Amino acid sequence: MQVKVVWQDGLRFLGLPPSGHAVVMDGARDVGGEDSGPRPTELLLIALGGCTGMDVVSILQKMRTPPRKFWIEIDAERNEQHPKAIRRVHLTYIAEGVPEENLRRAAELSQERYCSVAHSLSAELTFSVRASP
Amino acid sequence: MQVKVVWQDGLRFLGLPPSGHAVVMDGARDVGGEDSGPRPTELLLIALGGCTGMDVVSILQKMRTPPRKFWIEIDAERNEQHPKAIRRVHLTYIAEGVPEENLRRAAELSQERYCSVAHSLSAELTFSVRASP
Repeated sequence: MQVKVVWQDGLRFLGLPPSGHAVVMDGARDVGGEDSGPRPTELLLIALGGCTGMDVVSILQKMRTPPRKFWIEIDAERNEQHPKAIRRVHLTYIAEGVPEENLRRAAELSQERYCSVAHSLSAELTFSVRASP
Repeated sequence: MQVKVVWQDGLRFLGLPPSGHAVVMDGARDVGGEDSGPRPTELLLIALGGCTGMDVVSILQKMRTPPRKFWIEIDAERNEQHPKAIRRVHLTYIAEGVPEENLRRAAELSQERYCSVAHSLSAELTFSVRASP
C-alpha cells in the first residue's frame, strides 16, 4: 500500500491514501501550526479505534447481537521526553443492547487476532468493556 | 490524551480527538462498508507521514533552507494473514529547493529522535531522500 503525504504550508499536511479520502493534519498554534486539522498522534489513536471498532461491530453482528449504540474511549500515555512515543493505551469498549460476555469476546478476538492497527503498535495495550441492555 | 471513537452505522466510525477535529473512517464496499472515509490502516500511515513531515519542515526552517515543495511517499508491507499488521515501511522524502544533505539530516533527526508516531510503531522503518534545487 502506498500513501502520499503532501506539505501545504506552515505545519499543514494532506494525506492522500489509495481509497481517495484525503485527510488534513495540522499542528497546534503553540508549535507554529494553525490548528486546521487533527494532530498526527490523534490520528494514530483514531486509527486504532476505527480498526478495532470495525472488528467488534462485525463480530457482534455475526453473534446476532448487533449493538444499538457503540463507542470506544481510548486513553493513551506518552513519553514525556523526545521521542514522545505512545507507551500505554487502554481501550474501554462501551455498548448498549449487547450482552457483556459477547462484547468482551468480540474485543478479545479483535485485540488478539484481527486488529491490524493494534498489532502494528509497539505500545502496551489493555482493554475493558462496559455493556448495558 | 483521550480520544473517543463512535460507531455511526455499518462500518462507519467517527474519531473525536482533543483538538476537536473529527475524522470519519469507513470500510471498503467489499467488506460491508460504504467507503465514506479512509480505512484505519491508511490513517495510521497518514499519521506517520504527518508526524515526520512536521518535524522535517520545522528542522529545514531552522537550517534556513525551507522547502519550496515537500512530500513523502510511504510504502508499507502488511502481513498477508490475520492480524494483517504493518511489518515494513519505507519513507521517501522528496523536496524541492533544499540541499540533499539538509533533507537527509532532517529526516534522520526525525526518525531517530523526534517522531512520536514512528517510535510508536512496531514496524521496521527505512527511508531515503530525493532533493532537487
